[in-house]
Amino acid sequence: MANGAQAMLRTLLDAGVEVCFTNPGTSEMHFVAALDTAPDMRAILTLFEGVATGAADGYARMADKPASTLLHLGCGLGNGLANLHNARKGNVPVVNIVGDHAIAHAQYDAPLQSDIETAARNVSRWVRTSRSTAELCRDVAEAVAAAKGPPGQVATLILPADVSWGEGGVPVSAPEIAKPPRAADDVIEKIARVLEAGGRNALLLGGRALREPTLLAAARIAAQTGARLYAEVFPTRLERGAGLPHVERIAYLAEMASVQLAGLDNLILVDARAPVSFFAYPGKKSYLVPEGCTVHELASPDQDVSGSLESLCVQLGADQVAPTLQAPLRPGRPRGKLTAEKVCKAVGHLLPQNAIIVDEAQTSGTMLPMFTAGAPRHDVLALTGGAIGQALPVAVGAAIACPDRQVLALVGDGSAMYTFQALWTMARERLNVVSIIFNNKSYGILNVELERVGAGKAGPKAKAQLDLNSPGLDFVQLAEGMGVPAVRVTTAEDFTAALERALASPGTHLIEAVVPSVFSGLKLRVLPWLLRSLGTLPDPVARALKRKLAP
Amino acid sequence: MANGAQAMLRTLLDAGVEVCFTNPGTSEMHFVAALDTAPDMRAILTLFEGVATGAADGYARMADKPASTLLHLGCGLGNGLANLHNARKGNVPVVNIVGDHAIAHAQYDAPLQSDIETAARNVSRWVRTSRSTAELCRDVAEAVAAAKGPPGQVATLILPADVSWGEGGVPVSAPEIAKPPRAADDVIEKIARVLEAGGRNALLLGGRALREPTLLAAARIAAQTGARLYAEVFPTRLERGAGLPHVERIAYLAEMASVQLAGLDNLILVDARAPVSFFAYPGKKSYLVPEGCTVHELASPDQDVSGSLESLCVQLGADQVAPTLQAPLRPGRPRGKLTAEKVCKAVGHLLPQNAIIVDEAQTSGTMLPMFTAGAPRHDVLALTGGAIGQALPVAVGAAIACPDRQVLALVGDGSAMYTFQALWTMARERLNVVSIIFNNKSYGILNVELERVGAGKAGPKAKAQLDLNSPGLDFVQLAEGMGVPAVRVTTAEDFTAALERALASPGTHLIEAVVPSVFSGLKLRVLPWLLRSLGTLPDPVARALKRKLAP
Repeated sequence: MANGAQAMLRTLLDAGVEVCFTNPGTSEMHFVAALDTAPDMRAILTLFEGVATGAADGYARMADKPASTLLHLGCGLGNGLANLHNARKGNVPVVNIVGDHAIAHAQYDAPLQSDIETAARNVSRWVRTSRSTAELCRDVAEAVAAAKGPPGQVATLILPADVSWGEGGVPVSAPEIAKPPRAADDVIEKIARVLEAGGRNALLLGGRALREPTLLAAARIAAQTGARLYAEVFPTRLERGAGLPHVERIAYLAEMASVQLAGLDNLILVDARAPVSFFAYPGKKSYLVPEGCTVHELASPDQDVSGSLESLCVQLGADQVAPTLQAPLRPGRPRGKLTAEKVCKAVGHLLPQNAIIVDEAQTSGTMLPMFTAGAPRHDVLALTGGAIGQALPVAVGAAIACPDRQVLALVGDGSAMYTFQALWTMARERLNVVSIIFNNKSYGILNVELERVGAGKAGPKAKAQLDLNSPGLDFVQLAEGMGVPAVRVTTAEDFTAALERALASPGTHLIEAVVPSVFSGLKLRVLPWLLRSLGTLPDPVARALKRKLAP
Repeated sequence: MANGAQAMLRTLLDAGVEVCFTNPGTSEMHFVAALDTAPDMRAILTLFEGVATGAADGYARMADKPASTLLHLGCGLGNGLANLHNARKGNVPVVNIVGDHAIAHAQYDAPLQSDIETAARNVSRWVRTSRSTAELCRDVAEAVAAAKGPPGQVATLILPADVSWGEGGVPVSAPEIAKPPRAADDVIEKIARVLEAGGRNALLLGGRALREPTLLAAARIAAQTGARLYAEVFPTRLERGAGLPHVERIAYLAEMASVQLAGLDNLILVDARAPVSFFAYPGKKSYLVPEGCTVHELASPDQDVSGSLESLCVQLGADQVAPTLQAPLRPGRPRGKLTAEKVCKAVGHLLPQNAIIVDEAQTSGTMLPMFTAGAPRHDVLALTGGAIGQALPVAVGAAIACPDRQVLALVGDGSAMYTFQALWTMARERLNVVSIIFNNKSYGILNVELERVGAGKAGPKAKAQLDLNSPGLDFVQLAEGMGVPAVRVTTAEDFTAALERALASPGTHLIEAVVPSVFSGLKLRVLPWLLRSLGTLPDPVARALKRKLAP
């Protein structure tokens, strides 16, 4: 006879959920005790809930199936919300398990009592508090099915302690998941006619449209019709590199995105949303689709995205067309004083086959897409929801999902400090992750944003709010304090050598790259002018500048 | 002409809000830029929102007025929720300012868009999204008034970027705050009769009833009527030490609390709630007031607590009675291999006058109340809401509020890792904080809870979930990585010397105390028996054991 927790673990495993990222407390102790009855469930302890939720996100992006979390009541959920937000915005499946007080205990409003369902709804389309041990496994199976989607989503199951410890749990088999429908024939035909009519057209690919088969279909359509290919700003998972079609990402900076989209007649959305500015700015547009451009949706995230695009390809007679593929091309070895650009160059120089790049380098990563475009094929996992503190946790999950692949996490210093505890789990699980911290001693992106929002000349108090150099952060000590070998470098030669060494030896490594801010001094002062001018520059000049600056 | 942010800062200052704990992003850049127009507003940058919210909590506990936070949209709020939960449970005033997208931008569901109001409601009794620059300062004034209470509470003002950057902000003066009412005469008279009738009675003091004037009134009542004095488990702020009445805290472990409360005829609540178990356990009671004991409420948190208790004192004719005061008494200098008990002993040996102890030492702090009872007078700030990761941030805020007082943060290793980023702000602001990390290489309390919940014999996978030793955490490197000088000690002599040195030199210090778990091995195995037996032991034995074990 199983208790709730034991039956629940069997139900999770039956549904293919084999990994649980945990940060448990008293109300989850029966779940913890039950782990020894479920040898196939891998339980991975984190020191902070934001690591657990980000790791579940990273795992699912690479494994294409959900992991679960195990969080401690409403406060544990709170600590995990930011990375669940990122998962939600990326349509990533996560089975979020939040322990709660025993049902009869709730009336006493004990110190840790809070409204978990309300907090969970913010990030979860599916939320349920399981009411009895007998019903628990049905709830678990439904949670997993809801998480899987499509589209993938965060499903939060709240698990009262007595539902977990109660006897009479009966494992439930995973329900069949219906195959999602392709786009309707008339939608495909209409979009085919738009593309065949010529003009300046583009496909905007997002979500699951950025994987190889779909990318190839998109590239065939592009070759056949002359349509451009764009990827959304922060892809959940983008497969790219030599041998795959190159897809340009929409720029983070709205001014640059506007240049990319200027003059378009039609924009075809494929598991993507019409581009909008990340933030609003005084006097500037939020909606970035140019006037006169018609937006069409080929497939939404709840449809068969790949099948829809392949049908469009067939409809256009493009399925036998040769797609344009990225040629192998690596940048040379960088030399001299280290800059963020040279870090990106060295990554492009050395990137191993099948690497996974987790990119939260912000301003420092500006040149990364360019320098890695022709590197061996790799995946890029980006900051889908814009909530910083994601890269190190996502790297944990990606490495668990893909133990044979090299993970590189590129992270700004400010971003790294939100969820730095992820390093400990990397060391504990001996994950193949090289974390590269760009230490530019500031919230570099905010220097840019302070200029962009037109907040006037920044005084010393404002500038102090963007400064990370008083005191300076020593990422080598921080990493070593959690058991991760680390090195600080200040030259391109040392960085490249350190990255070479780290890639050559299995396990977890950290490299602190001391770099100047990408936008500082003169560059920062001319930025507003540059951004204002972009739209008025001759197209080739604007596009070259935009390529140079786009993330 | 002021913009919204500038007028808002003036309104905050006028209402006595002089400190803002920040972690801003793009949507808060106008607030940041406006800081240079408000020289009296102290803006303190944190690396993580949980530090900002915990610091605002600690500041208000000591300053008796709110600070504000500055957080970045819903995800920034999410990261700050756990410590706002602690503030909420402790009735601590916090003016929580959350930046948001410009109002017109919300329709585009940009990546960082989320439902901020819903997340905020979980921790805030007052929530409002300001709708225009013209109305902003009225909203700010109301937020501050709501935060001040009584009772103190978290008031969350959501600040759309365009409301902040819009012109036409007009500062608003702080409204008068009405003095809260005393308890009604008939309530006071009835409780006086109960106490005069004799029997086994106790006053349970919480919230603002644990400050000197109220404590003295309570001690006079105790001397006059024979009533016992108890403090709630985790006080918001408890004034204690030599020269003040000694008040025993209700034990965290329900089994021990039951012994404390056994046989009571009447329990008088003074800004406190009837005691309940922190968690529920299979087959055990949640509500800890013994059968046959009548609960009376003298004053609730929204009343004049001090005035009500003083009225009761007068009603009893006890206002001229000499209260029993704690005599000065320090433990000796500990010797030999370091244990958690010896750390607490050394703290009692050395505690300076007017120190502020922030206690999140969990199992390792078990002996702290005993060893510091007769130390020079000091304040204890406890884990009001049970959400761990509070002590280091609260220490930041307490040190900002009281620059002339020594702050000691006593923190378990597990707890410390939730919000360790607080160390950086301590170093940056040169705060007089000595952080003592009990490194017992485990979630010690969960070892106890695993036994208490009756989850059966823990297997290796369960035990691994409580283990913090693979890899071990090096708190010296972690602290030095954020600019805080630190030392690791393994003997009582070294710990005492290190604490002496740290107290003698101004600024921020950290001591990593390597200690065995308080409950391990034999102690852990006999704990369930001990806890089961407590209620059946002869009263003096049970009380002695309880004193030995109570937090």
